[in-house]
Amino acid sequence: MKLYQFDPAPASRRVDIFLKEADVSIATEQLNVRDGDQFKEPFNSLNPFHCVPFLELSDGTVISETLAICRYLEESNQGKINLFGSTPKDRASIEMWNRRLEIDGYIPLMAGMRNKFERFDGKVLAGTRNDLKRSDIIVKRGEDSARILFERLDKYLDKYLFVAGKEFSVADITLFSTLELANNIGLNLDEYVNILDLKTRLSERDAFKK
Amino acid sequence: MKLYQFDPAPASRRVDIFLKEADVSIATEQLNVRDGDQFKEPFNSLNPFHCVPFLELSDGTVISETLAICRYLEESNQGKINLFGSTPKDRASIEMWNRRLEIDGYIPLMAGMRNKFERFDGKVLAGTRNDLKRSDIIVKRGEDSARILFERLDKYLDKYLFVAGKEFSVADITLFSTLELANNIGLNLDEYVNILDLKTRLSERDAFKK
Repeated sequence: MKLYQFDPAPASRRVDIFLKEADVSIATEQLNVRDGDQFKEPFNSLNPFHCVPFLELSDGTVISETLAICRYLEESNQGKINLFGSTPKDRASIEMWNRRLEIDGYIPLMAGMRNKFERFDGKVLAGTRNDLKRSDIIVKRGEDSARILFERLDKYLDKYLFVAGKEFSVADITLFSTLELANNIGLNLDEYVNILDLKTRLSERDAFKK
Repeated sequence: MKLYQFDPAPASRRVDIFLKEADVSIATEQLNVRDGDQFKEPFNSLNPFHCVPFLELSDGTVISETLAICRYLEESNQGKINLFGSTPKDRASIEMWNRRLEIDGYIPLMAGMRNKFERFDGKVLAGTRNDLKRSDIIVKRGEDSARILFERLDKYLDKYLFVAGKEFSVADITLFSTLELANNIGLNLDEYVNILDLKTRLSERDAFKK
């Protein structure tokens, strides 16, 4: 089993934090996606979605997609710590928060980042090379969507220590990476005091240190 | 336990198909989100994300988010048929495809729909009421993203009967709803013959009939 990563990519950072928090040991290879390694063989055929991270299982099956990789590692007992929840109810709460953070925050901010910076010219959609143009409207929409999410989350965190309640979970990793994206595109988050408090506590955990 | 739905909403349609395919019986109440029922009490407090579907558990816990609801129903053994996969590997493949379909297809096409039609004025982001303007650029980006996905998926379906391989899964429900969205915004999919073939076979299943 081998994990293909590119450490500077936000999605790779999410999986890297997960590996450390869950205490998973796994062989890893770096693919420099800025140089287009993912379009060269054998990677081009291995992962037709042309993105990192992706996981190659021992029978050759390839699993791409951050959360699918993390869930597979947990369900196949590769790690020592459970981060997706133990009971159906806890698992559902974690899944709900993880999805909300992704759909309203991580994904629109990722689109914002790729549409904001020149270095993403020709690659505004992950895993593609084409002539789609960057757009300030998409940057702004990403920021607006994330602000609505943060406002809702900040109220909720007045009562809870972590995103999905009392315990640390994979949803906290998604929040942290979402906040790093927000920081990358220059969003000022000072008004969300509970979120920033949680961010500080997360950044003090060993797995979150760069 | 009660499920809050609005049948015309694409997300409600996904859960409805899941309930039928998994053979789950559950009390359901319709909230007319076009009239803003989700902002009226008790629903406003029940689900602070102001969207459908959401599931109220017997202890008062609320789970919103389509896939979190479906996964909860499966993991708490409410249904008779497993749609998320049985082994960690099958579950990872289904999760990967489901996420790809959502991230590259369902979510950008949903944004496309809300940015295309006048009836979404003031509600371009689900679960919100604000003055964000509809944008043709976001419609076009949704279509472009979906086309890249469909091109990749169509090649893959040359070898496989269903989205995640040989067996029907929750990822096929996500594909079907993604194709309904593509149809709603007028995307011509004639060139994707394998995808259209799968769509036809899915539409013949009882659960997919309206």
